[in-house]
Amino acid sequence: MKVITNKNIKSMDKIYRLNLINSVTGFKSANMIGTVSSDGNTNLAIFSSVTHMGSDPAVIGFFVRPTHVPRNTYSNIKDTGYYTINHISKSHIAKAHQSSAKYDEDISEFEELGFSEEYSGNIKAPYVAESNIKIGMKYKEEYPIKVNNTVLVVGEIAEIMIPEEIISEDGHINLNQSDTVTISGLDAYHKPEFLKRFDYARPGKELNEITR
Amino acid sequence: MKVITNKNIKSMDKIYRLNLINSVTGFKSANMIGTVSSDGNTNLAIFSSVTHMGSDPAVIGFFVRPTHVPRNTYSNIKDTGYYTINHISKSHIAKAHQSSAKYDEDISEFEELGFSEEYSGNIKAPYVAESNIKIGMKYKEEYPIKVNNTVLVVGEIAEIMIPEEIISEDGHINLNQSDTVTISGLDAYHKPEFLKRFDYARPGKELNEITR
Repeated sequence: MKVITNKNIKSMDKIYRLNLINSVTGFKSANMIGTVSSDGNTNLAIFSSVTHMGSDPAVIGFFVRPTHVPRNTYSNIKDTGYYTINHISKSHIAKAHQSSAKYDEDISEFEELGFSEEYSGNIKAPYVAESNIKIGMKYKEEYPIKVNNTVLVVGEIAEIMIPEEIISEDGHINLNQSDTVTISGLDAYHKPEFLKRFDYARPGKELNEITR
Repeated sequence: MKVITNKNIKSMDKIYRLNLINSVTGFKSANMIGTVSSDGNTNLAIFSSVTHMGSDPAVIGFFVRPTHVPRNTYSNIKDTGYYTINHISKSHIAKAHQSSAKYDEDISEFEELGFSEEYSGNIKAPYVAESNIKIGMKYKEEYPIKVNNTVLVVGEIAEIMIPEEIISEDGHINLNQSDTVTISGLDAYHKPEFLKRFDYARPGKELNEITR
């Protein structure tokens, strides 16, 4: 077992540190965030920090570095109040990864990468038509993070577009059936294989597997 | 494609909503957080909200609901200033899930679930000896989230304990080799299979696969 100290981390080569620290927390969600600017330019960018924050109200957070790429996502959300979160499936990993490139503001990643814009009519932001699970988000709050000048953007779910057949009778979504991938580090795409679901855990009670 | 609106979500059965909204963001990290109280009681609880926030400084966040279970994790972190983040591997999913049960404050989940405490000597908090990747954390900041009364707890990496052979030459950790799992929803454990790594993306440049 190797021990890497805080001092070791601080003195690392920048790329080595980026790869190591980005992969040390475990697997991450793989989504593309779709936005539109007030003058109508659409934008699409990959994010691996989209995180469930609570179910009632249904809130989701993600971290953005406003002074860095992808610079358009944050300003578009602030301008319009809406954004979409679109799952990345196995067949789209190369195109989705390419959305991390620093395209100019007036270039739409949808067009550039070959994804199709889809609009629900309920919110302004564009969805990725090719995505199997799509979430429409309404901006709610933001929290500037002092320690590293990032911002936690918090939104509430406005609507979800999802194939009905992949939702279990208890509401759980079978992400295997949506072909959703997961990211580790900056650039490693994985396809999760289902192992088990377990029942609600109670002290002193034997844990049961959920097979529905 | 089914459209689920915000109004639908608000009127859902609570368990159905919990399952749906917990699984809609995609795959989540699977970690157990280890802490010790000021009077020496150790605690271990599963979290799926551990998120990479930045590499320099190396900061990690997670969301906790201080008024809810797991109640001890948050108060122990505030009392001692330290905690550990321990990857859940495939062989430990049942025991790790059981750590979500509401054990009394004076009961150590380590002992109750059969995990061994391990101490590095550098930080106060206990590591899970059986975990393949272990991160020692120093508490830095917290952000109370208005919309749902959760708290974002932010810490800086104090040390990482990891098998040296699973780190690539560029710093990327091969999480397949650590047998780390991912969670979807409240209770579904998955084992990711590696697909591809891609090089740094640039506009107009063909995307290359990383094979190292």
